[in-house]
Amino acid sequence: MFLRDCWYVAAWEHELAGEGLLARRIVGDRVVLYRRADGGVAALADACSHRLAPLSLGRREGDRVRCMYHGLLFDGGGRCVEIPGQDRIAERAHIRSYPVVERDRFIWIWMGDPALADPAAIPDCHWQADPGWRSIPATMHYKADYRLIADNLLDFSHLSFVHENSLGGSSTIALTRPKIDLIDGGLRLTRWYLGEPDLAPYLRGLADLEGPIDRWHIYDWLTAGNVLSMDSGSAPAGTGAPEGRRDPRAVQFHAVQVLTPEDEHNTHFFWTYGHDFNLDDPAFTRALADRIQVGFEEDRTIIEAQQAVMLERPEAVMVDLAVDQAPMLARSLMTRRLQAEAAGA
Amino acid sequence: MFLRDCWYVAAWEHELAGEGLLARRIVGDRVVLYRRADGGVAALADACSHRLAPLSLGRREGDRVRCMYHGLLFDGGGRCVEIPGQDRIAERAHIRSYPVVERDRFIWIWMGDPALADPAAIPDCHWQADPGWRSIPATMHYKADYRLIADNLLDFSHLSFVHENSLGGSSTIALTRPKIDLIDGGLRLTRWYLGEPDLAPYLRGLADLEGPIDRWHIYDWLTAGNVLSMDSGSAPAGTGAPEGRRDPRAVQFHAVQVLTPEDEHNTHFFWTYGHDFNLDDPAFTRALADRIQVGFEEDRTIIEAQQAVMLERPEAVMVDLAVDQAPMLARSLMTRRLQAEAAGA
Amino acid sequence: MFLRDCWYVAAWEHELAGEGLLARRIVGDRVVLYRRADGGVAALADACSHRLAPLSLGRREGDRVRCMYHGLLFDGGGRCVEIPGQDRIAERAHIRSYPVVERDRFIWIWMGDPALADPAAIPDCHWQADPGWRSIPATMHYKADYRLIADNLLDFSHLSFVHENSLGGSSTIALTRPKIDLIDGGLRLTRWYLGEPDLAPYLRGLADLEGPIDRWHIYDWLTAGNVLSMDSGSAPAGTGAPEGRRDPRAVQFHAVQVLTPEDEHNTHFFWTYGHDFNLDDPAFTRALADRIQVGFEEDRTIIEAQQAVMLERPEAVMVDLAVDQAPMLARSLMTRRLQAEAAGA
Repeated sequence: MFLRDCWYVAAWEHELAGEGLLARRIVGDRVVLYRRADGGVAALADACSHRLAPLSLGRREGDRVRCMYHGLLFDGGGRCVEIPGQDRIAERAHIRSYPVVERDRFIWIWMGDPALADPAAIPDCHWQADPGWRSIPATMHYKADYRLIADNLLDFSHLSFVHENSLGGSSTIALTRPKIDLIDGGLRLTRWYLGEPDLAPYLRGLADLEGPIDRWHIYDWLTAGNVLSMDSGSAPAGTGAPEGRRDPRAVQFHAVQVLTPEDEHNTHFFWTYGHDFNLDDPAFTRALADRIQVGFEEDRTIIEAQQAVMLERPEAVMVDLAVDQAPMLARSLMTRRLQAEAAGA
Repeated sequence: MFLRDCWYVAAWEHELAGEGLLARRIVGDRVVLYRRADGGVAALADACSHRLAPLSLGRREGDRVRCMYHGLLFDGGGRCVEIPGQDRIAERAHIRSYPVVERDRFIWIWMGDPALADPAAIPDCHWQADPGWRSIPATMHYKADYRLIADNLLDFSHLSFVHENSLGGSSTIALTRPKIDLIDGGLRLTRWYLGEPDLAPYLRGLADLEGPIDRWHIYDWLTAGNVLSMDSGSAPAGTGAPEGRRDPRAVQFHAVQVLTPEDEHNTHFFWTYGHDFNLDDPAFTRALADRIQVGFEEDRTIIEAQQAVMLERPEAVMVDLAVDQAPMLARSLMTRRLQAEAAGA
Repeated sequence: MFLRDCWYVAAWEHELAGEGLLARRIVGDRVVLYRRADGGVAALADACSHRLAPLSLGRREGDRVRCMYHGLLFDGGGRCVEIPGQDRIAERAHIRSYPVVERDRFIWIWMGDPALADPAAIPDCHWQADPGWRSIPATMHYKADYRLIADNLLDFSHLSFVHENSLGGSSTIALTRPKIDLIDGGLRLTRWYLGEPDLAPYLRGLADLEGPIDRWHIYDWLTAGNVLSMDSGSAPAGTGAPEGRRDPRAVQFHAVQVLTPEDEHNTHFFWTYGHDFNLDDPAFTRALADRIQVGFEEDRTIIEAQQAVMLERPEAVMVDLAVDQAPMLARSLMTRRLQAEAAGA
């Protein structure tokens, strides 16, 4: 069961270029997305009302899309506007359309009741569009329930193990409990690791800092749409980073990570890892993204393996640990929201 | 559920050459076919009565086939005639055999009660054997319910869309309702498109006609065995083609298309596309077949995509259109025949 | 349902080399095996107690293995000895370990109640370790229920058919009923084929015997662990082989064949085919193993095909023959043992 009354990331803005039709499955629904002449984006159910042929195999005709099986023509709002060979178009020939908003390089889609689709509820991901930041849009596909990936993102103790030679590099991370605060719509996690001997491995050669170092990960996790927005960085130890001062040698990043369930066992993962320095060095931006990608591939390997065991042993008891506080809290926020949505329906 | 008391096409005659054993699944049954010394064809259940090893992995011994697991020997009628190491052969060691008739290059098989297998009920496909016609036997496999392919064959409005650049080439087809007549065992569909500006794309370069043109598709659809037998052609407009006159410049074809269900979600498709001119030009026969093949591959793409959506959304409501008259009538004939078969049993 | 209170072959000794972690599924359980510093072998459930990540993706730390997701550390007995970031380790954080014994080049594992794991119950496979014999350890994987493979091993009538050109070579085998004796824990099958015209095809060129020949297959089949231990050979006819005399020209072999169920539809097959002559000729040992392998591949083809039909037709009736006496007796011994185990639990 998925939350429906919320904004999900459906795609990157650049995936909707020209006359193309993009097919994507989101919380179990097949959706076809395309860009209209006015620059807006249409999102329709990807199955013709007649015989369920996918519209994504169809043909664009301006802002409309024609099913290329028997030729039904739909406008961007899902209305059937032509049925070859007959004049009458029944109401039930229209198909579902989904509210869409393009913001911060993301195409956001509302999978629930359109009447509730308020663009003001879209999470802030401005770092992806802000000229003061650079990042490369990236997508990964996981053969796993989105909740397993959320668990992963919400407990950084795994950085010491999964990412020992990439994003982590310090056993301190596993030993550090985050400060957990409830915020509007989710959680805020704050982690400080003071006086670390060295940079994280993925930053070595990319940043000019030598140890000892103060590191931090501070982020907001939003239940609706599974959005993580993270400030992280490294500063020379004792230069006041925890109090908000930023030594000129400090490096700072802003990461956005979003989970859009494809179905019960598959997830789309959209992410950027922004930097606000070296702005004119595309090679730096690329190298940083490549190293982060290595880290996410480490995650994917272990999470997909975990998913395979879980599918095989649905009855298996799992032991909760101290590190699970944030993931469990996030799951309970999700449960409450799912219940509220069900009750409202 | 499949009709069983009817003739299905099991194979092409040339598939049963020499000493080979042909394994094929038909309406869910595994069948093994082979040619006897007298030229006849045997068709047996493709599983030994002992431990279900496939006989198609066995060995021909004259007109008999030996299971190469433990050596049981069966004659072409399915009787077990030898069990190594024992004298007594129990009645239940015999296996099922199926009535088979070879006609018009097809191997026809009767999947139901053998007592009802009347060769007189085999549909006429003589164009495939007639020296006045040329065609190339072709087989395709669809990952789709045969009924979706039948729907496709019974409504040519899709020629304007699926086959816009191959078999179709005119929006007139989508706008033309066929004349539908009930015939013995099925339907006859008659379509005329008069004064068309040009030949269908697949004929361009193959036929020497210039527009305007009168085109036609006239065919019989037989419920039993899912057999389509189609006369089609193109003639200079106004030369009396609808009244039965054939201008010397006219080109005419006879197509045979047969659907044999493999199982609920897979179908064997046997077809020829015969011509009665250019009889001594094998390159023409080949080119024509290749172009028709392109069209069927266009069909397969959309039908398999439709099947995938339908399996995912078994509860989806579909909207019936005017173009669905023939497919729906064909389905209701099939339902009636299935009911009759069930009632008779 | 599988017998659990018995020793299964989990692996060959050489599969557990160095610091590696071997993941293997046995009677449905995922197990991870590794060699300890003292040379012993540890076998643990291959899923961390915390979130089910496979330990086989983890890291060896001496005789311990650390889950590389969140860092839980387990000793070779399955005790969780460290949870990063917390002091208390709950009892239920420990994972299952399995008794293991290494003997005769096999790693034996006990999948049931550890209190009942008596090494004295391990079948004798000393030929694999005895310096008077040579063989090459081999493993095959079958996509088939282990019982279908056991049926195959327990009825040699198939040698005349499946292995006509390899292990068999004589129709006499199919016509010879074995002498069947009940032994402790299983069956003994004795087969003599006297005065055969020639060696089995797989021995031609490898042994220096000319016909006529007396051949034999004598073996013990043990229900627990599905272990076959076979003495076989060929001697000049009439030189007293059946009475136990061994002519100097006779060749004799000792085969060990073990079936370890992976799950309901997959089986690990471990085997050797030992010879007690040509001891210093590794090329002979290799050639012999290669030819036996050909035979087992013939078996696998027919058994996997049989399994596919059986999965498709679960309701199919099978006809029992005279040759099925030993397989059916073996199945009834297994059923009795399964019932005893269930009753004891």
